[in-house]
Amino acid sequence: MSIERWVPLFGWLRSYNRKLLSRDALAAIIVTLMLVPQALAYALLAGLPPEMGLYASMLPLVLYAIFGTSASLAVGPVAVAALMTASALSNFASPGSPEYIGAALVLAALSGLILIAMGVLRLGFLVNFLSHPVISGFITASGILIAISQLRHILGVEASGHNIIDLMGALLSQWQQVNITTLLIGLGVWSFLLVCRKRLNTWLTAIGVSASIAGLIVKAAPISAVIATTLLAWGLNLEQRGVALVGAVPSGLPALALPNLEQSLWLSLLPAALLISLVGFVESVSVAQTLAAKRRQRIDPNQELIALGMANLGAGISGGSPVSGGFSRSVVNFEAGAATPLAGAFTALGIMLSTLLLTDLLAFLPTATLAATIIVAVGTLIDLPAVKRTWQYSRSDGLAMVATLLLTLLHSVELGIISGVVLSLGLHLYRTSQPHSAVIGRVPGTEHFRNVKRHQVETDENVAMLRIDESLYFANARYLEDTVMALAARSPSLKHIVLTCQAVNVIDASALESLEAINARLNDSGAKLHLAEVKGPVMDRLQHTDFCRELTGQVFFTTFDAWQALAHPAEANSPLLPTQREETTSCNSDTPR
Amino acid sequence: MSIERWVPLFGWLRSYNRKLLSRDALAAIIVTLMLVPQALAYALLAGLPPEMGLYASMLPLVLYAIFGTSASLAVGPVAVAALMTASALSNFASPGSPEYIGAALVLAALSGLILIAMGVLRLGFLVNFLSHPVISGFITASGILIAISQLRHILGVEASGHNIIDLMGALLSQWQQVNITTLLIGLGVWSFLLVCRKRLNTWLTAIGVSASIAGLIVKAAPISAVIATTLLAWGLNLEQRGVALVGAVPSGLPALALPNLEQSLWLSLLPAALLISLVGFVESVSVAQTLAAKRRQRIDPNQELIALGMANLGAGISGGSPVSGGFSRSVVNFEAGAATPLAGAFTALGIMLSTLLLTDLLAFLPTATLAATIIVAVGTLIDLPAVKRTWQYSRSDGLAMVATLLLTLLHSVELGIISGVVLSLGLHLYRTSQPHSAVIGRVPGTEHFRNVKRHQVETDENVAMLRIDESLYFANARYLEDTVMALAARSPSLKHIVLTCQAVNVIDASALESLEAINARLNDSGAKLHLAEVKGPVMDRLQHTDFCRELTGQVFFTTFDAWQALAHPAEANSPLLPTQREETTSCNSDTPR
Repeated sequence: MSIERWVPLFGWLRSYNRKLLSRDALAAIIVTLMLVPQALAYALLAGLPPEMGLYASMLPLVLYAIFGTSASLAVGPVAVAALMTASALSNFASPGSPEYIGAALVLAALSGLILIAMGVLRLGFLVNFLSHPVISGFITASGILIAISQLRHILGVEASGHNIIDLMGALLSQWQQVNITTLLIGLGVWSFLLVCRKRLNTWLTAIGVSASIAGLIVKAAPISAVIATTLLAWGLNLEQRGVALVGAVPSGLPALALPNLEQSLWLSLLPAALLISLVGFVESVSVAQTLAAKRRQRIDPNQELIALGMANLGAGISGGSPVSGGFSRSVVNFEAGAATPLAGAFTALGIMLSTLLLTDLLAFLPTATLAATIIVAVGTLIDLPAVKRTWQYSRSDGLAMVATLLLTLLHSVELGIISGVVLSLGLHLYRTSQPHSAVIGRVPGTEHFRNVKRHQVETDENVAMLRIDESLYFANARYLEDTVMALAARSPSLKHIVLTCQAVNVIDASALESLEAINARLNDSGAKLHLAEVKGPVMDRLQHTDFCRELTGQVFFTTFDAWQALAHPAEANSPLLPTQREETTSCNSDTPR
Repeated sequence: MSIERWVPLFGWLRSYNRKLLSRDALAAIIVTLMLVPQALAYALLAGLPPEMGLYASMLPLVLYAIFGTSASLAVGPVAVAALMTASALSNFASPGSPEYIGAALVLAALSGLILIAMGVLRLGFLVNFLSHPVISGFITASGILIAISQLRHILGVEASGHNIIDLMGALLSQWQQVNITTLLIGLGVWSFLLVCRKRLNTWLTAIGVSASIAGLIVKAAPISAVIATTLLAWGLNLEQRGVALVGAVPSGLPALALPNLEQSLWLSLLPAALLISLVGFVESVSVAQTLAAKRRQRIDPNQELIALGMANLGAGISGGSPVSGGFSRSVVNFEAGAATPLAGAFTALGIMLSTLLLTDLLAFLPTATLAATIIVAVGTLIDLPAVKRTWQYSRSDGLAMVATLLLTLLHSVELGIISGVVLSLGLHLYRTSQPHSAVIGRVPGTEHFRNVKRHQVETDENVAMLRIDESLYFANARYLEDTVMALAARSPSLKHIVLTCQAVNVIDASALESLEAINARLNDSGAKLHLAEVKGPVMDRLQHTDFCRELTGQVFFTTFDAWQALAHPAEANSPLLPTQREETTSCNSDTPR
């Protein structure tokens, strides 16, 4: 039981059978066809030698299969992680250099350890502070950056940079060096892939291919482009014409080795590793949860942390770049019928075979082809309408999203996502620090109370009823003081102020002190403070506090009780009695709700 | 009108008359008697020459009188600000050195500019993020640090340090150097002041002195101790016996001069200035609001920022240390009948006269006397029972308080308060990221619904009703997904899930996407999602969203409507109709409340 908790494999492997095997194997074959070009492409994007993308698709997948809880999540190199890796490493060494590669391994191992630690310490909730708008803005910006960064391979020029300004500047400065042959290949593959994506599906279904099969064929289009252009480059000896090729890829499997253990390097890579871990985890969990739900399955986010951590650790010791769950590959894996995490292990097998057999061929693969596949692939990441949608729904969310998007594009992925998180937290705290509150009055003839500004309601000049629509905590405690004291200062005739608390889910120590201050100040100015509709859990806490003892007024069960007791003293005598009993006991017995 | 908004003086000065004048003058005389020794003492505490304390009690008070909105707040040097100043400057120079003094002026000017900027930009709300427990823990720790740091003057030894460990270590290493005469003076003053504080009041009232007068006499006790020990030191020539005296204090008023404008110095002092400003402002506003409320007056926090900023800026250009509103002096000022901010200006006049006339005498004042007055004064800052009280009320508040207290004592004031703020924010976000939620059922025969775990209620295996007791935002959006999907996974027979939202004050974009995901996933697994008791403002926002269009279930006005419509399909037909009308219109018309 406890071993299964940490190693889910032992759980589902018992019931493994040939039927599941065949499903997993089929899915693995299809995902492998997708993964080979993607692995090479994302290594290229990360500024790493192509084999590192392949290595990142072996051991990590096996480890995820052992520790993971999602039957569909396809782990491996992904575009955003590759971009973040390139951005992080560029501060340490020049792309492709031994130091650069060494740092990449450290980055993977470090991300792995961070994720494992978070999983063991049950810190999965930390990712909650990456809000949807921030993630969405960040992913869109990343997609744009990735696409633009790949243009250089299609143009056949040298141009690097980690924000849109540097990249465009570098590209424009190089326009004379554009290599026409490369450009033709790149644009050819690009348009071919676009056509496949946009039309092929309809064509295939038109000629009677089943929708699911058609979808899989479309997903396999990149591999055919790879094969075609590879043969082209080999046959026409395009390297002579200055077409950049992937070049020699060492055949065989990676050697296991500890990454560079230099402490200073680990420390300086820590922030980048943290960001890559969090972003990768959020993306993986989202897709895994979505796919799991389709089969009414569930995944364990904290176990996912450990599994993804193991996968990255594995990448770090087997010559791979940082990995996470890829969206498109996971969907294909799901649609192809992957039944258990073992599908991932079989995919790793497929990649190993490819590495053993195909490396001589892959040497002739034009980088322009890979660039085109990346550009088309990241097209799915870019969601600009979401900005408009979010902005229309909520200004503060829109603001956080736009800030993340622009700062990522114009400065760097690190600054982009960090400012997004800080801004969204700040805006949330600012909003809750000035909660919505309404002076309410009685809807004539009913027991209901409404905002005096919105409805025709009865009020009493001696009684002010204030409804606070927010939990009371330190950030809005002083605002509460100001609101209530302003209310008291406005109407000198005021004898009673009733705080209606049905929306108050918590009163923390700061708010409690503010309530004590309000109570004392109102008392000094000759008015009483009352509470109404205090929730059970909140009341439980208030019971034994000085505030509850010193409260000049009463704690009413409902706003209507308060109204009856305070607003009409004449007729109040009889209804007052139960209310008073309510009040005298209310500080020592918890109110319902 | 607009000028009065920025310069309140012009507002109240018109209605100024002789009666108010006499009240302000009397209060000024009493506060001056308190302020002279305190000004010298806090300069000593800040590691500055005594005259800087006096200078900080002249121009700043005049400026506050012009821009301030509190009739009672007594501005000037205060203990905590002095401690923070000493701690901040110790990184730049040795106490008393010209660089140290120059940095102190920059610190004051910088705090002033920060406060003014916050006031102009209406950033007063920022102080809300200093929670009561953090402030309280910080003040208590500061009081303890101050008291211990003053022991060296009473023992007549050299010992410095910015946390309790350094201070105690330094004191213990010096125990042989203790100067008996100094010790006698220190202990004598100390016990005298304690007796005054504890007993004098009762004695005076016993012999028929009115309570208020008695209180003021008690407050004036320090000045008599100052006079007595000064005469003693002068008459017995105690300096010969190694008793440390205040020494030559330059007579006359300070010269106005710009502080050192070196940019690097300003930048490195910025964090300390920010902390001093915020803490000083929080303390000032709290006492000002409390006193104002006693007379049903109000203060304008943002104008207070400007006034305190001007005061600190004034200190910076007139040779003074950072200032803020002192608690004890303000209370005395209030009790003595101060009627307008002009009382502060008169106090400044009193300090000027003292500086012109008394400096020759003050030279003979033993520092032990000042140390004793500080120790007794800060006794009122230390509130250890508050720790227990806060801990009992709320673990998270208690944790933030203890962390602030311990880190301030054991490390430094800066680390103490910063970690307190970060911790309290983190704990608040953590709490709201895992909101209280309850599966509810119908209280038989009523329209009320309660937690199934707490009450005997009716439930329906096809319908699960979940009440979320928190606003839905990014930090708890994923938690919501987990909670709902766990609910769905537990009971396969589930057809309907109803989210009851009476405690949901906001649904941000992240929560909206989570709701969309929940809706889609429940749909995939054959269950419908419904909402109930959605608040007006929240519904207004939801109306035009995709979620509202794609919602598989309905939006019910009340939980009972949902129960009628879903739990008892048989008898639902007639009550369903209004509910359905409710539902079909609910996405285009705002629900009440």
